Amino acid sequence: MLWHDGKIRNSSEAMLTANDRGLSLGDGLFETLPAFNGIAFLKHEHIARMKASADYFSIPFDQKKVERAIDDLAEVNKDPCVIRVTLTRGRAERGLAFPKDPKPEIFATRNPWSHTLAFQKITLSTSSIRRNATSPSSSHKTLSYLDSVMAHADAQKNHADDALMLDQDGHVASTSMANLFALSGRELLTPQRGALLPGIIRDFVIGTAPNIGLTVIEKHLHLRDLLAADLVFSTNSVRLMTMITMIDGDALKQKSTAHYLDLENALKDQILADTNYRI
Amino acid sequence: MLWHDGKIRNSSEAMLTANDRGLSLGDGLFETLPAFNGIAFLKHEHIARMKASADYFSIPFDQKKVERAIDDLAEVNKDPCVIRVTLTRGRAERGLAFPKDPKPEIFATRNPWSHTLAFQKITLSTSSIRRNATSPSSSHKTLSYLDSVMAHADAQKNHADDALMLDQDGHVASTSMANLFALSGRELLTPQRGALLPGIIRDFVIGTAPNIGLTVIEKHLHLRDLLAADLVFSTNSVRLMTMITMIDGDALKQKSTAHYLDLENALKDQILADTNYRI
Repeated sequence: MLWHDGKIRNSSEAMLTANDRGLSLGDGLFETLPAFNGIAFLKHEHIARMKASADYFSIPFDQKKVERAIDDLAEVNKDPCVIRVTLTRGRAERGLAFPKDPKPEIFATRNPWSHTLAFQKITLSTSSIRRNATSPSSSHKTLSYLDSVMAHADAQKNHADDALMLDQDGHVASTSMANLFALSGRELLTPQRGALLPGIIRDFVIGTAPNIGLTVIEKHLHLRDLLAADLVFSTNSVRLMTMITMIDGDALKQKSTAHYLDLENALKDQILADTNYRI
Repeated sequence: MLWHDGKIRNSSEAMLTANDRGLSLGDGLFETLPAFNGIAFLKHEHIARMKASADYFSIPFDQKKVERAIDDLAEVNKDPCVIRVTLTRGRAERGLAFPKDPKPEIFATRNPWSHTLAFQKITLSTSSIRRNATSPSSSHKTLSYLDSVMAHADAQKNHADDALMLDQDGHVASTSMANLFALSGRELLTPQRGALLPGIIRDFVIGTAPNIGLTVIEKHLHLRDLLAADLVFSTNSVRLMTMITMIDGDALKQKSTAHYLDLENALKDQILADTNYRI
Protein backbone atom coordinates (compact mmCIF):
# COMPACT_ATOMS: atom_id res chain seq x y z
CA MET A 1 0.00 0.00 0.00
CA LEU A 2 1.44 3.33 -1.13
CA TRP A 3 0.76 6.92 -0.11
CA HIS A 4 1.67 9.51 -2.73
CA ASP A 5 0.36 13.04 -3.19
CA GLY A 6 -2.36 12.52 -0.64
CA LYS A 7 -3.74 9.39 -2.30
CA ILE A 8 -3.43 5.77 -1.22
CA ARG A 9 -2.94 3.27 -3.99
CA ASN A 10 -1.42 -0.06 -4.96
CA SER A 11 2.28 -0.02 -4.10
CA SER A 12 3.27 -1.94 -7.22
CA GLU A 13 2.09 0.96 -9.37
CA ALA A 14 4.81 2.87 -11.26
CA MET A 15 5.29 6.21 -9.63
CA LEU A 16 8.86 7.47 -9.84
CA THR A 17 10.75 8.85 -12.81
CA ALA A 18 14.18 7.56 -13.78
CA ASN A 19 15.79 10.91 -12.98
CA ASP A 20 14.69 11.13 -9.36
CA ARG A 21 17.88 11.59 -7.35
CA GLY A 22 16.64 9.25 -4.66
CA LEU A 23 17.02 6.52 -7.24
CA SER A 24 19.92 7.80 -9.33
CA LEU A 25 22.20 8.86 -6.43
CA GLY A 26 20.72 7.48 -3.20
CA ASP A 27 20.01 11.15 -2.47
CA GLY A 28 17.24 11.00 0.09
CA LEU A 29 16.09 9.83 3.50
CA PHE A 30 13.65 7.41 5.04
CA GLU A 31 12.03 6.58 8.35
CA THR A 32 10.42 3.30 9.34
CA LEU A 33 8.03 3.09 12.25
CA PRO A 34 5.29 0.78 13.50
CA ALA A 35 1.68 1.80 14.04
CA PHE A 36 -0.72 0.12 16.47
CA ASN A 37 -4.45 0.70 16.62
CA GLY A 38 -4.13 3.31 13.88
CA ILE A 39 -1.52 5.34 15.79
CA ALA A 40 2.11 5.60 14.60
CA PHE A 41 4.42 4.94 17.55
CA LEU A 42 6.90 7.76 18.41
CA LYS A 43 5.81 9.59 15.25
CA HIS A 44 7.01 13.00 16.38
CA GLU A 45 10.46 11.63 17.21
CA HIS A 46 10.76 10.05 13.76
CA ILE A 47 9.60 13.23 12.04
CA ALA A 48 12.04 15.31 14.09
CA ARG A 49 14.92 13.04 13.13
CA MET A 50 13.97 13.18 9.46
CA LYS A 51 13.69 16.97 9.64
CA ALA A 52 17.15 17.26 11.24
CA SER A 53 18.62 15.06 8.50
CA ALA A 54 16.78 16.94 5.74
CA ASP A 55 18.23 20.18 7.10
CA TYR A 56 21.69 18.61 7.15
CA PHE A 57 21.41 17.49 3.54
CA SER A 58 19.70 20.74 2.42
CA ILE A 59 16.57 18.89 1.28
CA PRO A 60 13.49 21.10 1.72
CA PHE A 61 11.25 19.41 4.29
CA ASP A 62 7.46 19.54 4.18
CA GLN A 63 6.73 18.42 7.72
CA LYS A 64 2.95 18.54 7.35
CA LYS A 65 3.06 16.35 4.28
CA VAL A 66 5.29 13.78 5.98
CA GLU A 67 3.00 13.71 8.99
CA ARG A 68 -0.07 13.38 6.80
CA ALA A 69 1.48 10.46 4.89
CA ILE A 70 2.17 8.66 8.16
CA ASP A 71 -1.25 9.42 9.66
CA ASP A 72 -3.18 8.49 6.51
CA LEU A 73 -1.47 5.10 6.30
CA ALA A 74 -1.69 4.45 10.05
CA GLU A 75 -5.42 5.13 9.95
CA VAL A 76 -6.23 2.74 7.09
CA ASN A 77 -7.24 0.24 9.76
CA LYS A 78 -6.27 -0.76 13.30
CA ASP A 79 -4.04 -3.69 12.37
CA PRO A 80 -0.43 -3.34 13.51
CA CYS A 81 1.63 -2.19 10.55
CA VAL A 82 5.02 -0.87 9.51
CA ILE A 83 5.04 2.51 7.82
CA ARG A 84 8.02 3.66 5.82
CA VAL A 85 8.15 7.25 4.64
CA THR A 86 10.70 8.21 2.00
CA LEU A 87 11.91 11.71 1.11
CA THR A 88 14.06 12.22 -2.00
CA ARG A 89 15.68 15.36 -3.37
CA GLY A 90 13.39 14.81 -6.37
CA ARG A 91 13.98 14.77 -10.08
CA ALA A 92 16.95 16.65 -11.49
CA GLU A 93 19.29 16.98 -14.44
CA ARG A 94 22.36 14.76 -14.77
CA GLY A 95 25.28 15.40 -12.41
CA LEU A 96 26.01 15.60 -8.71
CA ALA A 97 25.27 19.30 -8.10
CA PHE A 98 22.10 20.01 -6.14
CA PRO A 99 19.23 21.15 -8.40
CA LYS A 100 18.73 24.91 -8.11
CA ASP A 101 14.98 24.53 -7.73
CA PRO A 102 14.56 21.22 -5.86
CA LYS A 103 11.19 19.48 -5.92
CA PRO A 104 11.46 16.87 -3.18
CA GLU A 105 9.41 13.74 -3.51
CA ILE A 106 7.57 12.27 -0.52
CA PHE A 107 5.90 8.91 -0.47
CA ALA A 108 5.16 6.24 2.11
CA THR A 109 4.30 2.56 2.22
CA ARG A 110 2.37 0.40 4.66
CA ASN A 111 3.10 -3.27 5.35
CA PRO A 112 1.88 -5.65 8.07
CA TRP A 113 3.68 -5.73 11.42
CA SER A 114 3.79 -8.98 13.32
CA HIS A 115 4.64 -9.86 16.94
CA THR A 116 7.24 -12.23 15.54
CA LEU A 117 9.37 -9.23 14.50
CA ALA A 118 9.82 -7.91 18.04
CA PHE A 119 11.56 -9.03 21.24
CA GLN A 120 13.37 -11.87 19.52
CA LYS A 121 16.76 -13.49 20.16
CA ILE A 122 19.32 -13.32 17.36
CA THR A 123 22.95 -14.10 16.54
CA LEU A 124 25.50 -11.74 14.98
CA SER A 125 28.64 -12.15 12.91
CA THR A 126 31.17 -9.36 12.53
CA SER A 127 31.12 -7.68 9.11
CA SER A 128 34.26 -6.77 7.19
CA ILE A 129 32.42 -3.59 6.15
CA ARG A 130 33.21 -0.82 8.60
CA ARG A 131 31.02 2.16 9.47
CA ASN A 132 32.77 5.40 8.63
CA ALA A 133 32.17 8.28 11.04
CA THR A 134 33.07 10.82 8.32
CA SER A 135 30.29 9.51 6.07
CA PRO A 136 26.95 11.25 6.58
CA SER A 137 25.30 7.97 5.56
CA SER A 138 26.52 6.44 8.83
CA SER A 139 24.71 8.89 11.10
CA HIS A 140 21.62 9.68 9.01
CA LYS A 141 18.99 7.28 7.69
CA THR A 142 19.67 7.77 3.99
CA LEU A 143 18.72 5.94 0.81
CA SER A 144 22.44 5.12 0.31
CA TYR A 145 21.98 1.95 2.32
CA LEU A 146 23.99 -0.60 0.35
CA ASP A 147 26.73 -1.10 2.97
CA SER A 148 24.05 -2.30 5.39
CA VAL A 149 22.48 -4.51 2.72
CA MET A 150 25.81 -6.21 2.02
CA ALA A 151 26.80 -6.51 5.67
CA HIS A 152 23.45 -8.17 6.37
CA ALA A 153 23.84 -10.51 3.38
CA ASP A 154 27.34 -11.53 4.51
CA ALA A 155 26.03 -12.25 8.01
CA GLN A 156 23.33 -14.50 6.58
CA LYS A 157 25.97 -16.33 4.52
CA ASN A 158 27.75 -16.92 7.85
CA HIS A 159 24.50 -18.39 9.27
CA ALA A 160 24.03 -15.43 11.60
CA ASP A 161 20.86 -13.36 11.76
CA ASP A 162 22.54 -9.98 11.40
CA ALA A 163 25.91 -8.26 11.13
CA LEU A 164 27.93 -6.62 13.88
CA MET A 165 29.43 -3.50 12.32
CA LEU A 166 32.55 -1.84 13.73
CA ASP A 167 33.71 1.66 12.88
CA GLN A 168 36.97 2.47 11.09
CA ASP A 169 38.85 2.39 14.42
CA GLY A 170 37.50 -1.00 15.42
CA HIS A 171 34.95 0.26 17.91
CA VAL A 172 31.49 -1.28 17.97
CA ALA A 173 29.05 0.84 15.93
CA SER A 174 25.77 -1.04 15.47
CA THR A 175 24.24 -3.96 13.62
CA SER A 176 23.25 -3.49 9.98
CA MET A 177 19.87 -2.19 11.15
CA ALA A 178 19.89 -1.67 14.93
CA ASN A 179 21.70 0.08 17.78
CA LEU A 180 23.54 -1.96 20.42
CA PHE A 181 23.54 -1.95 24.21
CA ALA A 182 25.49 -3.98 26.78
CA LEU A 183 24.33 -4.52 30.37
CA SER A 184 27.08 -4.84 32.95
CA GLY A 185 25.74 -4.91 36.49
CA ARG A 186 23.66 -1.74 36.77
CA GLU A 187 25.57 -0.05 33.96
CA LEU A 188 24.00 0.15 30.54
CA LEU A 189 26.77 0.73 27.97
CA THR A 190 26.15 1.87 24.42
CA PRO A 191 28.45 3.11 21.64
CA GLN A 192 28.85 6.86 21.61
CA ARG A 193 27.57 8.92 18.65
CA GLY A 194 29.69 9.18 15.55
CA ALA A 195 29.48 6.22 13.21
CA LEU A 196 25.96 5.22 14.18
CA LEU A 197 22.38 6.25 13.61
CA PRO A 198 20.73 8.11 16.51
CA GLY A 199 18.03 5.47 16.88
CA ILE A 200 14.58 6.39 18.14
CA ILE A 201 14.31 3.28 20.37
CA ARG A 202 17.95 3.88 21.40
CA ASP A 203 16.83 7.30 22.65
CA PHE A 204 13.85 5.75 24.41
CA VAL A 205 16.05 3.20 26.20
CA ILE A 206 18.62 5.85 27.19
CA GLY A 207 15.81 8.01 28.55
CA THR A 208 14.08 5.16 30.40
CA ALA A 209 17.04 3.28 31.88
CA PRO A 210 17.60 5.69 34.82
CA ASN A 211 13.97 5.15 35.89
CA ILE A 212 14.68 1.48 36.47
CA GLY A 213 17.94 2.06 38.32
CA LEU A 214 20.41 1.74 35.44
CA THR A 215 23.26 4.16 34.68
CA VAL A 216 23.69 4.82 30.98
CA ILE A 217 27.24 5.26 29.71
CA GLU A 218 27.84 6.27 26.09
CA LYS A 219 31.43 5.42 25.19
CA HIS A 220 33.67 3.57 22.77
CA LEU A 221 33.03 -0.15 23.09
CA HIS A 222 35.05 -3.03 21.72
CA LEU A 223 33.89 -6.47 20.70
CA ARG A 224 35.52 -7.82 23.90
CA ASP A 225 33.23 -5.52 25.94
CA LEU A 226 30.20 -7.16 24.36
CA LEU A 227 31.60 -10.64 24.98
CA ALA A 228 32.26 -9.75 28.63
CA ALA A 229 28.87 -8.10 29.26
CA ASP A 230 26.08 -9.68 31.28
CA LEU A 231 23.67 -9.23 28.40
CA VAL A 232 23.75 -7.61 24.95
CA PHE A 233 20.74 -6.35 23.07
CA SER A 234 19.86 -4.25 20.07
CA THR A 235 17.12 -1.70 19.45
CA ASN A 236 15.26 -0.92 16.25
CA SER A 237 11.97 0.87 15.61
CA VAL A 238 10.25 -2.15 14.06
CA ARG A 239 11.93 -4.99 15.97
CA LEU A 240 11.88 -2.91 19.18
CA MET A 241 14.35 -4.84 21.38
CA THR A 242 16.29 -7.95 20.43
CA MET A 243 18.52 -10.03 22.68
CA ILE A 244 21.87 -11.05 21.15
CA THR A 245 22.74 -14.66 22.00
CA MET A 246 25.94 -15.18 20.03
CA ILE A 247 28.62 -13.18 18.19
CA ASP A 248 30.91 -14.94 15.68
CA GLY A 249 29.96 -18.27 17.22
CA ASP A 250 30.78 -17.19 20.80
CA ALA A 251 27.77 -17.60 23.09
CA LEU A 252 27.00 -14.52 25.17
CA LYS A 253 26.22 -14.73 28.89
CA GLN A 254 22.55 -13.63 28.78
CA LYS A 255 22.68 -12.87 32.52
CA SER A 256 20.81 -10.04 34.25
CA THR A 257 17.68 -10.66 32.26
CA ALA A 258 15.73 -8.84 34.99
CA HIS A 259 17.08 -5.45 33.86
CA TYR A 260 16.45 -6.37 30.24
CA LEU A 261 12.88 -7.36 31.01
CA ASP A 262 12.39 -4.10 32.93
CA LEU A 263 13.39 -2.18 29.80
CA GLU A 264 11.22 -4.41 27.60
CA ASN A 265 8.25 -3.83 29.89
CA ALA A 266 8.86 -0.08 29.95
CA LEU A 267 8.77 -0.08 26.16
CA LYS A 268 5.62 -2.21 26.07
CA ASP A 269 4.03 0.13 28.62
CA GLN A 270 4.88 3.13 26.44
CA ILE A 271 3.29 1.47 23.42
CA LEU A 272 0.22 0.67 25.50
CA ALA A 273 0.03 4.23 26.84
CA ASP A 274 0.47 5.83 23.42
CA THR A 275 -1.60 3.49 21.26
CA ASN A 276 -3.68 1.35 23.63
CA TYR A 277 -2.07 -1.72 22.05
CA ARG A 278 -0.74 -4.50 24.28
CA ILE A 279 2.16 -6.53 22.88
CA MET B 1 15.24 10.32 -23.10
CA LEU B 2 14.69 6.96 -21.40
CA TRP B 3 15.24 3.38 -22.51
CA HIS B 4 13.14 0.81 -20.66
CA ASP B 5 12.07 -2.68 -21.72
CA GLY B 6 13.31 -2.12 -25.25
CA LYS B 7 11.32 1.08 -25.76
CA ILE B 8 12.54 4.66 -25.86
CA ARG B 9 10.27 7.21 -24.24
CA ASN B 10 10.10 10.49 -22.39
CA SER B 11 12.39 10.33 -19.37
CA SER B 12 10.01 12.26 -17.14
CA GLU B 13 7.49 9.44 -17.38
CA ALA B 14 6.82 7.49 -14.19
CA MET B 15 8.39 4.10 -14.48
CA LEU B 16 9.60 2.74 -11.15
CA THR B 17 7.63 1.38 -8.24
CA ALA B 18 8.17 2.61 -4.70
CA ASN B 19 9.46 -0.80 -3.61
CA ASP B 20 12.31 -1.06 -6.10
CA ARG B 21 15.42 -1.67 -4.00
CA GLY B 22 17.43 0.68 -6.20
CA LEU B 23 15.33 3.44 -4.74
CA SER B 24 14.57 2.11 -1.26
CA LEU B 25 18.09 0.92 -0.38
CA GLY B 26 20.48 2.30 -3.02
CA ASP B 27 20.77 -1.35 -4.03
CA GLY B 28 21.99 -1.16 -7.60
CA LEU B 29 24.67 -0.05 -10.02
CA PHE B 30 25.15 2.42 -12.82
CA GLU B 31 27.53 3.23 -15.64
CA THR B 32 27.89 6.55 -17.44
CA LEU B 33 29.59 6.79 -20.81
CA PRO B 34 29.67 9.14 -23.79
CA ALA B 35 28.69 8.23 -27.32
CA PHE B 36 29.98 9.93 -30.46
CA ASN B 37 28.58 9.44 -33.95
CA GLY B 38 26.14 6.89 -32.59
CA ILE B 39 28.89 4.75 -31.00
CA ALA B 40 29.26 4.40 -27.23
CA PHE B 41 32.92 4.93 -26.30
CA LEU B 42 34.63 2.03 -24.45
CA LYS B 43 31.26 0.30 -24.18
CA HIS B 44 32.67 -3.17 -23.60
CA GLU B 45 34.88 -1.91 -20.78
CA HIS B 46 31.89 -0.28 -19.07
CA ILE B 47 29.76 -3.39 -19.49
CA ALA B 48 32.57 -5.59 -18.13
CA ARG B 49 32.91 -3.37 -15.07
CA MET B 50 29.16 -3.43 -14.45
CA LYS B 51 29.11 -7.22 -14.84
CA ALA B 52 31.96 -7.63 -12.34
CA SER B 53 30.12 -5.43 -9.84
CA ALA B 54 26.80 -7.19 -10.44
CA ASP B 55 28.54 -10.51 -9.74
CA TYR B 56 30.04 -9.05 -6.55
CA PHE B 57 26.64 -7.86 -5.33
CA SER B 58 24.85 -11.02 -6.49
CA ILE B 59 22.57 -9.07 -8.85
CA PRO B 60 21.66 -11.19 -11.88
CA PHE B 61 23.16 -9.49 -14.94
CA ASP B 62 21.52 -9.50 -18.37
CA GLN B 63 24.49 -8.42 -20.45
CA LYS B 64 22.62 -8.43 -23.76
CA LYS B 65 19.91 -6.18 -22.36
CA VAL B 66 22.43 -3.71 -20.97
CA GLU B 67 24.27 -3.62 -24.28
CA ARG B 68 21.04 -3.18 -26.20
CA ALA B 69 19.98 -0.26 -23.94
CA ILE B 70 23.32 1.46 -24.60
CA ASP B 71 23.27 0.78 -28.34
CA ASP B 72 19.65 1.81 -28.82
CA LEU B 73 20.23 5.16 -27.11
CA ALA B 74 23.59 5.75 -28.82
CA GLU B 75 21.97 5.18 -32.21
CA VAL B 76 19.10 7.64 -31.73
CA ASN B 77 21.19 10.12 -33.69
CA LYS B 78 24.87 11.03 -34.23
CA ASP B 79 24.99 13.91 -31.74
CA PRO B 80 27.48 13.42 -28.92
CA CYS B 81 25.59 12.27 -25.87
CA VAL B 82 25.97 10.87 -22.37
CA ILE B 83 24.34 7.53 -21.72
CA ARG B 84 23.69 6.33 -18.21
CA VAL B 85 22.57 2.75 -17.68
CA THR B 86 21.15 1.76 -14.31
CA LEU B 87 20.72 -1.75 -12.90
CA THR B 88 18.75 -2.28 -9.69
CA ARG B 89 18.04 -5.44 -7.71
CA GLY B 90 14.41 -4.75 -8.56
CA ARG B 91 11.26 -4.67 -6.51
CA ALA B 92 11.13 -6.59 -3.27
CA GLU B 93 9.38 -6.95 0.06
CA ARG B 94 10.39 -4.80 3.03
CA GLY B 95 13.72 -5.56 4.73
CA LEU B 96 17.39 -5.87 3.90
CA ALA B 97 17.52 -9.55 2.92
CA PHE B 98 18.01 -10.21 -0.80
CA PRO B 99 14.75 -11.22 -2.53
CA LYS B 100 14.71 -14.97 -3.17
CA ASP B 101 13.55 -14.50 -6.74
CA PRO B 102 15.17 -11.22 -7.83
CA LYS B 103 13.78 -9.39 -10.86
CA PRO B 104 16.48 -6.83 -11.65
CA GLU B 105 15.42 -3.62 -13.35
CA ILE B 106 17.45 -2.16 -16.21
CA PHE B 107 16.91 1.25 -17.70
CA ALA B 108 19.05 3.90 -19.38
CA THR B 109 18.91 7.60 -20.14
CA ARG B 110 20.43 9.76 -22.85
CA ASN B 111 21.46 13.41 -22.39
CA PRO B 112 23.52 15.78 -24.57
CA TRP B 113 27.32 15.72 -24.28
CA SER B 114 29.18 18.94 -24.88
CA HIS B 115 32.86 19.73 -25.55
CA THR B 116 32.71 22.05 -22.58
CA LEU B 117 32.53 19.01 -20.28
CA ALA B 118 35.92 17.62 -21.31
CA PHE B 119 39.58 18.63 -21.00
CA GLN B 120 38.82 21.44 -18.58
CA LYS B 121 40.84 22.94 -15.73
CA ILE B 122 39.33 22.74 -12.26
CA THR B 123 40.06 23.44 -8.60
CA LEU B 124 39.61 21.04 -5.68
CA SER B 125 39.01 21.39 -1.97
CA THR B 126 39.60 18.52 0.46
CA SER B 127 36.42 16.92 1.77
CA SER B 128 35.92 15.96 5.41
CA ILE B 129 34.13 12.85 4.08
CA ARG B 130 36.60 9.99 3.75
CA ARG B 131 36.42 7.08 1.35
CA ASN B 132 36.25 3.80 3.21
CA ALA B 133 38.12 0.90 1.63
CA THR B 134 35.94 -1.61 3.51
CA SER B 135 32.78 -0.18 1.91
CA PRO B 136 31.86 -1.82 -1.38
CA SER B 137 30.34 1.51 -2.41
CA SER B 138 33.87 2.95 -2.60
CA SER B 139 35.13 0.51 -5.21
CA HIS B 140 31.95 -0.15 -7.19
CA LYS B 141 29.74 2.35 -9.02
CA THR B 142 26.63 1.90 -6.91
CA LEU B 143 23.40 3.82 -6.44
CA SER B 144 24.46 4.55 -2.83
CA TYR B 145 26.20 7.70 -4.01
CA LEU B 146 25.30 10.21 -1.32
CA ASP B 147 28.82 10.59 0.11
CA SER B 148 29.98 11.82 -3.30
CA VAL B 149 26.97 14.12 -3.59
CA MET B 150 27.72 15.72 -0.23
CA ALA B 151 31.48 15.94 -0.80
CA HIS B 152 30.80 17.69 -4.11
CA ALA B 153 28.30 20.07 -2.51
CA ASP B 154 30.78 20.96 0.25
CA ALA B 155 33.47 21.67 -2.36
CA GLN B 156 31.14 24.00 -4.19
CA LYS B 157 30.38 25.80 -0.91
CA ASN B 158 34.16 26.28 -0.62
CA HIS B 159 34.18 27.81 -4.13
CA ALA B 160 36.02 24.82 -5.57
CA ASP B 161 34.84 22.84 -8.57
CA ASP B 162 35.09 19.43 -6.96
CA ALA B 163 36.16 17.61 -3.80
CA LEU B 164 39.44 15.86 -3.12
CA MET B 165 38.55 12.72 -1.17
CA LEU B 166 41.05 10.95 1.06
CA ASP B 167 40.66 7.44 2.41
CA GLN B 168 40.30 6.55 6.10
CA ASP B 169 44.12 6.50 6.47
CA GLY B 170 44.56 9.93 4.89
CA HIS B 171 45.78 8.69 1.51
CA VAL B 172 44.48 10.33 -1.64
CA ALA B 173 41.56 8.34 -3.07
CA SER B 174 39.85 10.31 -5.85
CA THR B 175 37.63 13.32 -6.44
CA SER B 176 33.90 12.93 -5.86
CA MET B 177 33.55 11.73 -9.44
CA ALA B 178 37.00 11.13 -10.99
CA ASN B 179 40.28 9.28 -10.52
CA LEU B 180 43.49 11.20 -9.88
CA PHE B 181 46.96 11.14 -11.43
CA ALA B 182 50.17 13.06 -10.64
CA LEU B 183 52.99 13.57 -13.16
CA SER B 184 56.47 13.77 -11.68
CA GLY B 185 59.15 13.81 -14.36
CA ARG B 186 58.48 10.69 -16.42
CA GLU B 187 56.64 8.99 -13.58
CA LEU B 188 52.87 8.90 -13.62
CA LEU B 189 51.64 8.29 -10.07
CA THR B 190 48.10 7.23 -9.21
CA PRO B 191 46.47 5.98 -5.99
CA GLN B 192 46.49 2.21 -5.69
CA ARG B 193 43.22 0.25 -5.68
CA GLY B 194 41.24 -0.01 -2.48
CA ALA B 195 39.09 2.99 -1.67
CA LEU B 196 38.57 4.08 -5.27
CA LEU B 197 36.57 3.17 -8.33
CA PRO B 198 38.50 1.31 -11.05
CA GLY B 199 37.83 4.02 -13.61
CA ILE B 200 37.55 3.19 -17.29
CA ILE B 201 39.54 6.24 -18.38
CA ARG B 202 41.95 5.54 -15.49
CA ASP B 203 42.55 2.11 -17.07
CA PHE B 204 42.99 3.72 -20.50
CA VAL B 205 45.59 6.17 -19.16
CA ILE B 206 47.45 3.43 -17.26
CA GLY B 207 47.50 1.33 -20.43
CA THR B 208 48.57 4.20 -22.71
CA ALA B 209 51.18 5.95 -20.57
CA PRO B 210 54.02 3.48 -21.30
CA ASN B 211 53.52 4.10 -25.04
CA ILE B 212 54.48 7.74 -24.56
CA GLY B 213 57.46 7.02 -22.34
CA LEU B 214 55.83 7.32 -18.91
CA THR B 215 56.24 4.84 -16.06
CA VAL B 216 53.00 4.22 -14.18
CA ILE B 217 53.28 3.72 -10.42
CA GLU B 218 50.18 2.75 -8.42
CA LYS B 219 50.86 3.50 -4.75
CA HIS B 220 49.61 5.33 -1.68
CA LEU B 221 49.74 9.07 -2.33
CA HIS B 222 49.40 11.91 0.14
CA LEU B 223 48.09 15.40 -0.44
CA ARG B 224 51.71 16.64 -0.23
CA ASP B 225 52.58 14.39 -3.21
CA LEU B 226 49.94 16.14 -5.30
CA LEU B 227 51.18 19.56 -4.20
CA ALA B 228 54.77 18.60 -5.12
CA ALA B 229 53.91 17.04 -8.48
CA ASP B 230 54.67 18.66 -11.83
CA LEU B 231 51.05 18.33 -12.86
CA VAL B 232 47.89 16.76 -11.41
CA PHE B 233 44.90 15.64 -13.43
CA SER B 234 41.75 13.62 -13.05
CA THR B 235 39.99 11.16 -15.34
CA ASN B 236 36.29 10.49 -15.77
CA SER B 237 34.33 8.82 -18.55
CA VAL B 238 32.30 11.91 -19.42
CA ARG B 239 34.81 14.67 -18.61
CA LEU B 240 37.65 12.51 -19.99
CA MET B 241 40.72 14.34 -18.61
CA THR B 242 40.73 17.42 -16.38
CA MET B 243 43.76 19.38 -15.21
CA ILE B 244 43.76 20.33 -11.52
CA THR B 245 44.99 23.89 -11.00
CA MET B 246 44.51 24.35 -7.26
CA ILE B 247 43.86 22.33 -4.10
CA ASP B 248 42.53 24.06 -0.97
CA GLY B 249 43.67 27.39 -2.38
CA ASP B 250 47.24 26.20 -3.13
CA ALA B 251 48.12 26.67 -6.80
CA LEU B 252 49.61 23.56 -8.41
CA LYS B 253 52.70 23.73 -10.63
CA GLN B 254 51.08 22.75 -13.94
CA LYS B 255 54.52 21.91 -15.38
CA SER B 256 55.25 19.11 -17.86
CA THR B 257 52.17 19.86 -19.88
CA ALA B 258 53.84 18.05 -22.80
CA HIS B 259 53.24 14.65 -21.19
CA TYR B 260 49.71 15.64 -20.26
CA LEU B 261 49.01 16.71 -23.82
CA ASP B 262 50.46 13.45 -25.11
CA LEU B 263 47.95 11.56 -22.98
CA GLU B 264 45.13 13.88 -24.00
CA ASN B 265 46.00 13.36 -27.65
CA ALA B 266 46.19 9.60 -27.20
CA LEU B 267 42.68 9.67 -25.73
CA LYS B 268 41.37 11.90 -28.54
CA ASP B 269 43.01 9.55 -31.08
CA GLN B 270 41.29 6.57 -29.47
CA ILE B 271 37.91 8.33 -29.66
CA LEU B 272 38.60 9.18 -33.30
CA ALA B 273 39.65 5.60 -34.09
CA ASP B 274 36.65 4.05 -32.32
CA THR B 275 33.92 6.50 -33.29
CA ASN B 276 35.28 8.64 -36.12
CA TYR B 277 34.58 11.70 -33.94
CA ARG B 278 37.27 14.39 -33.58
CA ILE B 279 37.20 16.35 -30.31
